[in-house]
Amino acid sequence: MITIALDAMGGDHAPDVTIEAAKVFLEEVPNVKVKLFGDEAVLRAKLQANDRLEIIPTTEIVTGEDEPVKAIRGKKDSSMVRAAQAVKDGEADAIVSAGNTGALLTAGLLVVGRIKNIGRPGLAPLLPVVSGNLGSRFILMDAGANADTKAENMRQFAILGSYYAAKVLGIPNPRVGLINNGTEAGKGSALSQAAYDLLAEEASINFIGNVESRNLLEGVCDVAVTDGFTGNAVLKAIEGTASAIVRLLKDKIMGGSTMAKLGGAMLKDTLKGMAKDVDTSEFGGAVLLGVKAPVIKTHGSSDARAIVNAMKQAVTIIESGFVQEATDFFANE
Amino acid sequence: MITIALDAMGGDHAPDVTIEAAKVFLEEVPNVKVKLFGDEAVLRAKLQANDRLEIIPTTEIVTGEDEPVKAIRGKKDSSMVRAAQAVKDGEADAIVSAGNTGALLTAGLLVVGRIKNIGRPGLAPLLPVVSGNLGSRFILMDAGANADTKAENMRQFAILGSYYAAKVLGIPNPRVGLINNGTEAGKGSALSQAAYDLLAEEASINFIGNVESRNLLEGVCDVAVTDGFTGNAVLKAIEGTASAIVRLLKDKIMGGSTMAKLGGAMLKDTLKGMAKDVDTSEFGGAVLLGVKAPVIKTHGSSDARAIVNAMKQAVTIIESGFVQEATDFFANE
Repeated sequence: MITIALDAMGGDHAPDVTIEAAKVFLEEVPNVKVKLFGDEAVLRAKLQANDRLEIIPTTEIVTGEDEPVKAIRGKKDSSMVRAAQAVKDGEADAIVSAGNTGALLTAGLLVVGRIKNIGRPGLAPLLPVVSGNLGSRFILMDAGANADTKAENMRQFAILGSYYAAKVLGIPNPRVGLINNGTEAGKGSALSQAAYDLLAEEASINFIGNVESRNLLEGVCDVAVTDGFTGNAVLKAIEGTASAIVRLLKDKIMGGSTMAKLGGAMLKDTLKGMAKDVDTSEFGGAVLLGVKAPVIKTHGSSDARAIVNAMKQAVTIIESGFVQEATDFFANE
Repeated sequence: MITIALDAMGGDHAPDVTIEAAKVFLEEVPNVKVKLFGDEAVLRAKLQANDRLEIIPTTEIVTGEDEPVKAIRGKKDSSMVRAAQAVKDGEADAIVSAGNTGALLTAGLLVVGRIKNIGRPGLAPLLPVVSGNLGSRFILMDAGANADTKAENMRQFAILGSYYAAKVLGIPNPRVGLINNGTEAGKGSALSQAAYDLLAEEASINFIGNVESRNLLEGVCDVAVTDGFTGNAVLKAIEGTASAIVRLLKDKIMGGSTMAKLGGAMLKDTLKGMAKDVDTSEFGGAVLLGVKAPVIKTHGSSDARAIVNAMKQAVTIIESGFVQEATDFFANE
């Protein structure tokens, strides 16, 4: 039976939302086990262990302020490290955490471990396509697992992202684009030019060439490949702009005329539907691709629903056979 | 008298909008001359030259498809190159163009020329602060003049952007932030770490440390410094996200219930006001900083109003003495 390791102490609203998530997940998903890592007294006060729910007591917590490598090496009895160790030891099949991103990526790299021949794993969030093919999504990779990235890493991101899009998201022949400062071939930095050449030569992917970050939300590609520094800046620019515009709209309505307020009230359902269209937590979390098991990061501010979605995403990934397929591919490189 | 060189043939809607812009500008702004470079027959058919408007006939056009360096070196009688040459020769004080961005940057670099001791000029668009201090703006630099950037270039961007914010925008002691993948010191790529150290040591600026692209539109800093590749990706991600969200809202209203449509109609003025708040063309264009005279790029899709605003911005820059002050500063480096 599939087992999900949940870091009960990770995130801004832990452990309340992780406890709630574990409950809801077990109700909604049959035949999957949950191992909950965290403060024993707190967890036992709110949860009854049963044959599909195991509470694993841990005594330390990785905080948002912790330096990632130091935390993973030093806090051996933290909920995050113990959950990752359970995956490493074969006692769980995937780890989900809303905790310190850098620390979770480090746990994925150092504890769960890289797939053979993968140079650097990359972080792959799913982002919504908000015009045209509404409801679909694309992968951005690397969104920040690496501060410095080589072209060869980007070739591997493209392959991993492409497998993920095909196997897990069910997108046939996913279109792989390279984020660049122009769409023409030959554009860009020394790094993006070198990456372009490697992607163009890579037979296992459907490379459509350069794409601009301006067109990502239009669904210009299914897998947007970039170095981890640029990807992190692009992800945060998209998230920050979306929330700033929505906030501006709210402020304008609330601070506007009576007619504006009334108009806003009449649009309430529309705006709610729109918020849902751009809410990435509907899709689950960001997955670290290139490691031996699914390592899924949800937003620090995640509510129980976002964590449940990430846990379901873990099940989908495991059932898809993605990791095995990627492992087989890179074994022969 | 200040003279603005306007590339009449640059942009998607040239020369109609550039002709209109020249007319409006001359009506609105006294004591400034305009030199209009372009197709003589077309311009003379629609404009009457006078003592403040000179039409300079040119026979070539730099198109959006032209390779920048080749275009600037090869199309010597293009409206863009001739306009830049007029600035170089002291016959005009600034150039405004809605044409090929890469070509205009190249014209700025190769024709107008760098300020002494400036390694690489950088492109500095003004972006709106859309929450908190609404109506204010910040500079993003470099937004893409350079595909590959060194830390020392970024130090110069910080100084140039800071002078620009203070002298031209009138922001006292502008806050300079470095775009990075986290706010803590020590974060980031090898490049951003090296840039951080140079900015922290630079006495002439008010460096506030790392900023994340997520917080730019909240006005987290007045000058956001980054390398040209990341800056380009961030700028386009912000623009693309803003327009995707606005389009999504429109689609939802138009495709929604009768109540949604009515609500949308009642919010029309609010949405218009909001569009104005996030419309960067209100501020003028993106300025190439680090060259010997203002080189201003407006969007290819600019209307006459956007071009007029960019021409006014050129006048403000010239009257501020920004170029001379920057020249004096870097002369002593």
